Amino acid sequence: MKAGNGRLCVIGLGPGAAEWVTPEATQALTEASDLVGYAPYLQRVPQRADQIRHASDNREELMRARQALSLAASGRKVAVVSGGDPGVFAMAAAVFEALETGDPSWRDLDVRVIPGITAMQAAAARIGAPLGHDFCAISLSDNLKSWDVVEKRLQAAADGDFVLALYNPASKARPGRIHDAFACLRGRKPPATPVIFARALGRHEEKITVTSLAEADPSIADMATLVIIGSSATRLISGRGRARPFVYTPRAEGARP
Amino acid sequence: MKAGNGRLCVIGLGPGAAEWVTPEATQALTEASDLVGYAPYLQRVPQRADQIRHASDNREELMRARQALSLAASGRKVAVVSGGDPGVFAMAAAVFEALETGDPSWRDLDVRVIPGITAMQAAAARIGAPLGHDFCAISLSDNLKSWDVVEKRLQAAADGDFVLALYNPASKARPGRIHDAFACLRGRKPPATPVIFARALGRHEEKITVTSLAEADPSIADMATLVIIGSSATRLISGRGRARPFVYTPRAEGARP
Repeated sequence: MKAGNGRLCVIGLGPGAAEWVTPEATQALTEASDLVGYAPYLQRVPQRADQIRHASDNREELMRARQALSLAASGRKVAVVSGGDPGVFAMAAAVFEALETGDPSWRDLDVRVIPGITAMQAAAARIGAPLGHDFCAISLSDNLKSWDVVEKRLQAAADGDFVLALYNPASKARPGRIHDAFACLRGRKPPATPVIFARALGRHEEKITVTSLAEADPSIADMATLVIIGSSATRLISGRGRARPFVYTPRAEGARP
Repeated sequence: MKAGNGRLCVIGLGPGAAEWVTPEATQALTEASDLVGYAPYLQRVPQRADQIRHASDNREELMRARQALSLAASGRKVAVVSGGDPGVFAMAAAVFEALETGDPSWRDLDVRVIPGITAMQAAAARIGAPLGHDFCAISLSDNLKSWDVVEKRLQAAADGDFVLALYNPASKARPGRIHDAFACLRGRKPPATPVIFARALGRHEEKITVTSLAEADPSIADMATLVIIGSSATRLISGRGRARPFVYTPRAEGARP
């Protein structure tokens, strides 16, 4: 049933630091004959003379996925390289969309997804445990869905008193959507709700900002930023001298020490 | 400001397979003088004569966290060992709760969280990309919150048409809550919504079941199971011979190829 010996792995490298790349991802990269991906992700993989690289633009996800599937169908061992976790707002969904709508023989290909640390986990780890209890992950990108859908989800997340992790808070084309998201949430969550902006996670220029929903300046969120907004139970631990406060969401609802 | 040279790392080992343990977690385990954790997690760490092990019962999270902080305050290099990601329904929140309510000097300790692959990511990777778009993670455990809170969140997640990842679907003491959760969702989501039961991820006895909300038998979910329930956009790719269908949630809302 397999199309030759070809196969396709969709690999997550985590959010930027080599110490977050799993052994499974490293092994799959080692075995690949062809690397396909957005150029900055491919740059994170050490060069090897016997591997072919197919770099592409970030907005060409579906084309990139089709190319990868086509290469695998021709017998190549293809690694689609993604940052973070490819299954969370990343390349895996594009690969399966291309697979479903493409050549029927692609359904018999050996396709595997290799999970990675996603930005919200790295951001949470840096600051404490804000995702310690029920949470939602929402992409603010409205390239592929209407803003109405985003707003409906923000409202539902606020109604359910979830912690929120916001991906894709801004882009060059649409710098304003994070402002719209904050406007939506400010009417629905307490002003003192902790807010974390985590930028360039795992990279040299990493920067973590802790503030509150009332005081947050959404304009500091750019394409490289992950935003976490607490639930009503999320707490700050201060009194740490000059060190940043910790932020965590207790396991118990409404627990107040 | 630091209490001696002690420090505490809360380490995530991922959901069971060594290939998911990050280099950062391996390094932190190597540097530890003391390992603290639930016994089955400690068993996943190779024995070393010069490391002291402090195994405990699974329900003693807060006691275990206090013990770990106390050891770090005395100058030990402590690793609190957790499965999955310690920041997601695991030990990190307990550590910060113990820190906030404990000896004020603990606030100056060097406390770090080391993220790991969490069960929903491993489950998603095994089956395709069901978490490819907006999703919620909810713990069904009602040990520390009332069922009303769980039900409110399930309703909000259904109202927002999120994909759901359900942690702690059942326990020996409370086998019925997954039935209550399905009853709540069956009135709110389409009967054909894809449902995935992922049991014992990364372990020898791993088992993945794909079904629909109408046909799912919630009683197959036990303590070792992670449940994913799709959004209205989540799709099955069948026509793969005897192989399991893929399940994915497209990047675009309402996209129908």
